[in-house]
Amino acid sequence: MLVDISKKILIIGLGLLGGSYAKALKRFGFHISAITKNQSSIDYALKEKIIDEGSIELDERIIGDADLVIFALYPHIFVEWIEQNQGLLKSGALITDVTGVKRSIVYKIQDMLRPDLEFIAAHPMAGREVSGVENSTDKIFIGANYIVTPTDKNTPEAIGTCMELGKLLGFANVTTLSPEEHDEMIGFLSQLTHCIAITLMTCNDKEDMEKFTADSFRDLTRIARINDLMWSELFIANKDVLLDQMNMFLDKFNELKAMLEAEDVDGMREMMRHSTARRALFDKE
Amino acid sequence: MLVDISKKILIIGLGLLGGSYAKALKRFGFHISAITKNQSSIDYALKEKIIDEGSIELDERIIGDADLVIFALYPHIFVEWIEQNQGLLKSGALITDVTGVKRSIVYKIQDMLRPDLEFIAAHPMAGREVSGVENSTDKIFIGANYIVTPTDKNTPEAIGTCMELGKLLGFANVTTLSPEEHDEMIGFLSQLTHCIAITLMTCNDKEDMEKFTADSFRDLTRIARINDLMWSELFIANKDVLLDQMNMFLDKFNELKAMLEAEDVDGMREMMRHSTARRALFDKE
Repeated sequence: MLVDISKKILIIGLGLLGGSYAKALKRFGFHISAITKNQSSIDYALKEKIIDEGSIELDERIIGDADLVIFALYPHIFVEWIEQNQGLLKSGALITDVTGVKRSIVYKIQDMLRPDLEFIAAHPMAGREVSGVENSTDKIFIGANYIVTPTDKNTPEAIGTCMELGKLLGFANVTTLSPEEHDEMIGFLSQLTHCIAITLMTCNDKEDMEKFTADSFRDLTRIARINDLMWSELFIANKDVLLDQMNMFLDKFNELKAMLEAEDVDGMREMMRHSTARRALFDKE
Repeated sequence: MLVDISKKILIIGLGLLGGSYAKALKRFGFHISAITKNQSSIDYALKEKIIDEGSIELDERIIGDADLVIFALYPHIFVEWIEQNQGLLKSGALITDVTGVKRSIVYKIQDMLRPDLEFIAAHPMAGREVSGVENSTDKIFIGANYIVTPTDKNTPEAIGTCMELGKLLGFANVTTLSPEEHDEMIGFLSQLTHCIAITLMTCNDKEDMEKFTADSFRDLTRIARINDLMWSELFIANKDVLLDQMNMFLDKFNELKAMLEAEDVDGMREMMRHSTARRALFDKE
């Protein structure tokens, strides 16, 4: 086991994801500490016994003790933290993260990082429509995907440890992609879907529609409840890819519209059969 | 109670919805018969004791006995059935349906119907991604909406009976809309969502994406598994409205795209906050 039980894990940013990591990892008996901005989050986590210690300050002892440091912060705050505070980390510490975009942060952080530290990036594909450590639960990892995004600066040991972390957390699939492949994949599977959901939710302000809705509309707009601060940052950090994906979607949508205008039943049916066959790949288990 | 327990109910078209109606209504002890095209559907329903009798023929006795006739057929087959076979219906029989579009069938049928019959249209907003009587379940009605679409040709008694039927079936909300209001509502809440789902599912044929997917993509494409014969017919029957809704969606999507291009964070955040606030209206219960 690469992730040694005697190692100390520090979580920086104890929100929904940071808290869910703490809950999952505490079961194995790890020593877990946390640094986050609200005392109430620390108090909750101590009371729930999902961390051993925590602080809202840059506690030098806690930071200097950690063997594995997991950053669960907004992308730009993560970068700033490393810029300003990496001097506090223990030599040999391994750093990982949960950030939803990779190209814009991985190289930047690896380039500025002290040579005696290593950053191996990861993206746990899990979340909820609510935030905060109080809503954290390691159930969100069940059946979900965990993507490690190594670069040529990473060692096989760090990649292995990070993949093992994904398995310990309970993810169903642990895979690797380059930061570029990750951002393309995520642009389509997650960012484009959020663009679609918020568009659908805001394009028609007719009243009382909720009285007539079907589950299909609820499904397509579940993620329309969105953290505007985080997602606007994620969209811009992946702007080139996301714009390409939006255009790809638009081209196909316009194709369908043209078929409907022309009452091209055969064309529409072919698209629907393609859709049906392809959707089967995405069924869980 | 307007739906008298001594009345005989005939379901024409024993598929997923017809079968689910039979299951729900049989609990109250109604005499239920069915006419459908496959003997296996009749055999299943008799074995499950959700119908009392059934036939794959135009059984004159069964049809002539029915007080309430529920049509669960494709729109054009429903219209053809009435054209060709309405002579078999008992004088005074009440007709209703489950059709997902209304303008294109309600007036046509009411105009051609014998004066001693009445057709009150309804749309149960419930379904599954699987079809056939074997997959029927009245659980799909729980928490769902049932829309009655009367015209000035309908009597208050028939409207009342149809609304009561919706309640007996177990629908959470039973409401009325004009056929025009219905088609506009459904164009947005159901047809546009299916257009979006099948577009998203078919606009990118990259391989292996299922290994990296998040629940958001699964949510947005659940309904991308679609009955191509039925939905192409429904789309074309509501073509004018659906094209308007597709354009409305496109306008907003292009607005978001322009904001992303311009890195207009404030604009994107405002749209996301609007989306978040509006989505709260659509939560169940």
